[in-house]
Amino acid sequence: MEKAPVYADVEAARQRLAGHVHRTPVLTSRALDKMAGAEIFFKAENFQRTGAFKARGAFNAVFALPEAVAERGVVTHSSGNHGAALALAARERGIVATVVMPLTAPAPKQAAVAGYGGKIVLCEPTLAAREASAGAEVARTGAVMVAPFDSCNVAAGQGTAALELLDETGTLDLLVVPVGGGGLLAGTLAVGVERGVPVFGIEPERADDACRGLQSGTLQPQVVPVATLADGLTTAMSAMTFNAMTAHVAGIKTVSEAAIVAAMRLVWQRMKIVIEPSSAVAVAALLSGSLPIAGRRVGVVLTGGNVDLDRLPW
Amino acid sequence: MEKAPVYADVEAARQRLAGHVHRTPVLTSRALDKMAGAEIFFKAENFQRTGAFKARGAFNAVFALPEAVAERGVVTHSSGNHGAALALAARERGIVATVVMPLTAPAPKQAAVAGYGGKIVLCEPTLAAREASAGAEVARTGAVMVAPFDSCNVAAGQGTAALELLDETGTLDLLVVPVGGGGLLAGTLAVGVERGVPVFGIEPERADDACRGLQSGTLQPQVVPVATLADGLTTAMSAMTFNAMTAHVAGIKTVSEAAIVAAMRLVWQRMKIVIEPSSAVAVAALLSGSLPIAGRRVGVVLTGGNVDLDRLPW
Repeated sequence: MEKAPVYADVEAARQRLAGHVHRTPVLTSRALDKMAGAEIFFKAENFQRTGAFKARGAFNAVFALPEAVAERGVVTHSSGNHGAALALAARERGIVATVVMPLTAPAPKQAAVAGYGGKIVLCEPTLAAREASAGAEVARTGAVMVAPFDSCNVAAGQGTAALELLDETGTLDLLVVPVGGGGLLAGTLAVGVERGVPVFGIEPERADDACRGLQSGTLQPQVVPVATLADGLTTAMSAMTFNAMTAHVAGIKTVSEAAIVAAMRLVWQRMKIVIEPSSAVAVAALLSGSLPIAGRRVGVVLTGGNVDLDRLPW
Repeated sequence: MEKAPVYADVEAARQRLAGHVHRTPVLTSRALDKMAGAEIFFKAENFQRTGAFKARGAFNAVFALPEAVAERGVVTHSSGNHGAALALAARERGIVATVVMPLTAPAPKQAAVAGYGGKIVLCEPTLAAREASAGAEVARTGAVMVAPFDSCNVAAGQGTAALELLDETGTLDLLVVPVGGGGLLAGTLAVGVERGVPVFGIEPERADDACRGLQSGTLQPQVVPVATLADGLTTAMSAMTFNAMTAHVAGIKTVSEAAIVAAMRLVWQRMKIVIEPSSAVAVAALLSGSLPIAGRRVGVVLTGGNVDLDRLPW
C-alpha cells in the first residue's frame, strides 16, 4: 500500500513546487461570513495553474522522479483536472504525459489536457476501464503511473495549499476540504495534525463513500453510476487515503445537489470568481449549519474553476 | 459646467476613500498576455465593494459633502452600478439615497440598490425621463444630485483605480478603460496626464458617441435605442467628460458585440473571474490588434462583475 504523507513530505513538496505553481491568494467575503456566521478564509486554487489545486500534486510527483525514471514519461487516468495538471508538469520537465480519460469527460477538460501537450487515450467511464487502459500504457512504454490521489507525493503536493493558507492567516480553528479520492484530504490532514487544526472533509450526498466508510470503518465503493454535478468527486477513496481519513479526520459531512448549485452560484455572484461544483461542495457545507464553525476562523480550499460555461447547472 | 478633475482631486479622493473602499488586487494572466502580445495588468474592480469601480466615485462624492448638505440626502439616476454604490455610500454616512432607475435595469442591479438600503424610483428607460424623475426628487426633498459621471468628485473618485494600479505596477506604457458617460475616463486622464501615461478609451461599436465626438470635435448624442450587451456604457458623455477627453485622450477605439462576448467568456474561462460585458469591452480591444500595445506594459481597469447569471450572452 502507498504510504500516507506526513508533514515533512508536505514541507518537501513546498520546496519542490517553488517557481512551478502559484502561491494563490486567500480571499475573504463579508457577505459569506455573515451568511455562515464565521470568519472564512478561501484559498483560491481556482487561480492555480491549470485552474485547479491538482497542479500541486502533479508537479510534486513529476519533479520528485529521478532523471532515469522520468525520461520514460508518465501516465495517469483522471476525470480531468489531474490529467491537465500532469500534462503541464510533464511538459515543464520535458517528458511525455499520457492521460487516460473517460469518454464522458467534459470537452473543456479534454481541451486543457491537449493544450498542455498531453497525449489523450479515451476509455469507458468506469474506474476499471481507466485502470486497465493506464496499465496497458505503462506496460507498453515503461512510463511511470502517477495516480490522481493514491500517491504519497501527489497527496503531499495537495497538502501545500493548506500549508500556504495557514502561513498567511495564522492559526485557524478548522480546515474544510472537498473529498473525492481523498488526496487533498490526506495531504491536508498531514498539515492539520502537525499544526493542531481539525480537518473536515465534505462530499456530495450522491458520492458519499467517504462518509459511509468512516461510519462503517471499512473502505466503501462508490455507488455507480455516480450522479453528482461535482464531477471531480466521483471516485472512491484508496486504502491509503481511507486510512489517513479514519486515523485523523474530525468528520465527514455530505451536501445535497441543490446546496452545491446554490453555493456555486452564490460564490460567482458575491465573490465574482468562477469555481467548479466540486469546490462549491465545501462552501455548501459552510452554509449548511452542519459544521461547528459559529464565530470561528475557518479555512477552506476552493479547489478549482474549470467549468463548461455552456452547461451551467442553473 | 462641472469642473473636470485634476490630479490633486484624485489624490484627495484617495484620502477620503481610505477605509471605505477596497484596494482591489492587480491580476495577471500568462494566457491573455500571450494572446495580446503584451504584459497586461488587470485592476480587478469587479472585486470592489458593490461589485464595481462605481463605489469609488460615489463614496468620494458622498463623503465630500458638508454635514448640513449631506443630511438632506442624495439622489441619482443610474443604469445600476452607480445607484448601488450611492446607496451603500449613503448608508455608511447615515443619510438617505434615492435612486432613479430605468424599468429595464437588470433585476440583480435593482436588488443590489435595495439591498444597500437605497430607495428606488422607477422610470422610462431614457436619459430625459431619468433626469426629470431625479430632478423632481431633488425639488421635493432638497437632496443633492450625485450624477453618475458628470461630477468632478465622482470622476475624481473613479480615477483612484488608476492611481492604485500605477502605485502597484510602477510605470506603465498605457492605460485602457471603458467609456460610457466618461467619468472613469476623465478621472483616469487626470492621473495619466500627471504621470505621463497615455490613456485610451474603449466603447462598443453600438454605443460609439465618444468615438464620433472625438472625430467631429463636438459632443455627440447616443443613437437610441442603444443595443449593446455592455449596459453600463449606454449613456452619452457630458460636456465635462467630453472636454477632458478631447484635451487629453490618446485615442478612442470601438469593439463589436461578438468581440465583447468572446472577451468576457475568455476572462471567465482563463482568469476564473466574473466580469460584466462593460468590462469585457476593454479586454476585447486589447485582443483586437487596434491598440499600440505590442511588447508593452499595459494597465486596464476591469470595471465590474455584476452579471445576471441567468442571462449570459453565450
